[in-house]
This record gives sequence, C-alpha cells and structure tokens, in this order.
Amino acid sequence: MTELSATFLGRISFVKELDRLKTILRQSLILDSSRRENTAEHSWHLATAVVVLADHANGQLRLERAIRMALLHDVVEIYAGDTPIYDLQANKDKEVREREAMTKLIQSLPAEQGRDIEATWLEYEEGCTLEARFVLAVDRLLPLIANMSTGGHSWKKYSVKKAQVFEIIKGIESGSKEIYQYLLGLIEEACQKGYLLP
Amino acid sequence: MTELSATFLGRISFVKELDRLKTILRQSLILDSSRRENTAEHSWHLATAVVVLADHANGQLRLERAIRMALLHDVVEIYAGDTPIYDLQANKDKEVREREAMTKLIQSLPAEQGRDIEATWLEYEEGCTLEARFVLAVDRLLPLIANMSTGGHSWKKYSVKKAQVFEIIKGIESGSKEIYQYLLGLIEEACQKGYLLP
Repeated sequence: MTELSATFLGRISFVKELDRLKTILRQSLILDSSRRENTAEHSWHLATAVVVLADHANGQLRLERAIRMALLHDVVEIYAGDTPIYDLQANKDKEVREREAMTKLIQSLPAEQGRDIEATWLEYEEGCTLEARFVLAVDRLLPLIANMSTGGHSWKKYSVKKAQVFEIIKGIESGSKEIYQYLLGLIEEACQKGYLLP
Repeated sequence: MTELSATFLGRISFVKELDRLKTILRQSLILDSSRRENTAEHSWHLATAVVVLADHANGQLRLERAIRMALLHDVVEIYAGDTPIYDLQANKDKEVREREAMTKLIQSLPAEQGRDIEATWLEYEEGCTLEARFVLAVDRLLPLIANMSTGGHSWKKYSVKKAQVFEIIKGIESGSKEIYQYLLGLIEEACQKGYLLP
C-alpha cells in the first residue's frame, strides 16, 4: 500500500471542516416552518436552484463557475458566522471578519487551490460578472420565497419595511430580469398580507 | 410589466419543492454529534467535496457533470425518503420507489429539462461513467468520516460488520484509488476502536 499524499490528506481535513457549515443558523425558516435553516442546506438549495433557473439569467452563464460560486458563497460563515442582512451593526465589520475566515479556511489546501476558492468567493462578493450577479439574484430569491411561505417570519422579527427589501434586491435585475420581476410581485403580495411594513 | 412565463413559474414550483429535502433525515450524525444529518446539507457537502477532491479521480472529470450529479443524486428522497444502506428490507423496493419519485418530481419542469435531470440521476445510479463512480466514491467517503468522528454512531446502531463496509465500498476504487485506499485505512482503525464488528 503506497502512502497517501499530504495534499490528499490536507483536502480531507478541509472536507471535514466544511461540516461545520451545517451548524450555522440563518434567520430564514425552512418552508414547513419547523426550524431555522442552516447555511449548508441553504447552499445546496442555492446551487441546485442556479442549475434549474440558469435559462433565466440575462445571458449565457458559465454554469460550472456559477454552481461553484453558489456552493462556496457562504463558506466563510464557518468561522465568521451568519450576518443577518437587516442587522446593520453586525454588517459593519462583516467584510473584515469574512476575509480572515477565508484565509484560515483555505490553510489546509494546496496554495493554488486555496487561491482559486478565494477568487471564486471574491468574484461573488464583488458582483462584477454575470455569474456573480445571477447567483446573487437566486440568493435573494430564496429567502423571499421562505418569508412568503412562513408568514413573513424573518421580516416580522426585524420589523422590515418594504423599502428595505427593495434596497436588498436592488441590482439583481442585472443578473436576471425575470427573477427581479417575480420578486417585485412577491413584495407587493407581502405588503398586502402585512408581512412587510409600508 | 410583462407576464412571467409558465416555464419560469414551473421552475419556481420545483425550487420550492426542493426545500423538502431539508426534512429528510439520514442515519449519519453531523460531525459534532449534535443531531442527525439531513439529505440537503449532505448533498451540499458531497458537491463541495467533489470540487475539492476532483484531482483524486482516476482520470479527467467532466466537473460540471459530476457536481450536478452530486446536487441531484438524492433528490428522489423528497418523496421516497432515505433508505438506510444497511436496511436490507427497505432496499428491496428502493429502485421502484425512487423511479416513481423522480417522475413525480420533474412534472413541474419543461419536459426536456426534466429528462435531463432524470438522466443525470440515472447516470449516477447506473455508475457507468467516471463521474458517477467518482461521486459514489465521495458519497461513500463522507459517512465513513462521519462514523469515525461520532464514535461509530450509525455502524453501532445497525451492528455493522467490517465485511459489510467492504461490500459497500466495493468498486469505488474505479472512481478514486486514493479515496479507496484512505477508506481501507479508516476501516482498520474502526475495527481497532470497536466501531465495527469483526
């Protein structure tokens, strides 16, 4: 039996560390309202929704790139935790905390692979490519669907106003016109149902 | 505002239905032993591990294909439930239950897209391509890691013998020699620790 390489074993360490994302809780409930969603299952939902909705991107996606981005977009939460989108205080140092988390996370990987994972994540954060903008559009879509299915759970928790949701979905039209239009409809419906404050 | 297409809205229905995979519990615990793992977060872990470990496949992977396979490999459990690998009785009608589940699941999608998702899943089930065999190797790797990290939890629950684990990892050498070799080492260690019966 030949010895396993340090590269292989480093990657196994990384794969074990990934497991922690299952313990990071988000504000959204899962759609049956039974419990809060964790970031690992959210990331699966996002990546799979990206595959399913890819035809509705504003242009031809590099699909593999978009899926990888979805899988990795929140992986920094393993160390930085989830930062609720409506929590202004926690968002102040979010970027610094998340950059440090990424540096720590990729330590067990070969340098080139670590840089590639970091670059994929930064591409998403910076939002300059169609893939980044489309993944963001789907990432905004999912919690709106969750709020509509759970009586506005996380909106009510933070007393969210209609204008704040408009602010959050601002710009996703550049990733997907159809998703944006769909979300405008959901926001109207949410106001009528009293899930969002005027 | 133009009207959203029936195709778009059908895909949104599918994306909502996917949420149910978060409620399907597996036998494995997550690595901190705090609770059972669900199939959605497992599918994220698998897809991400496929990206991270791709260099250890026995050959050049079509990575996008492999990732899509990982994302979708257990999606039939939304209707068919999880079938524990050591439960011989439940495995008797697994194939029929899962085929019916796939047919039901893809109903809300355009026919061509539904067929593509079904074909991706069948490719995994049939195991005839390198991508299918590599994803299977990683799918076998993760619960072995989980058992090693949780005191042999699901092995002890089913009084699993060493020979049964050998049976389950049989053939994954054709997807990844290194993963197979790593698992042989884990199995020896599990026997020494009393997690597996001789």
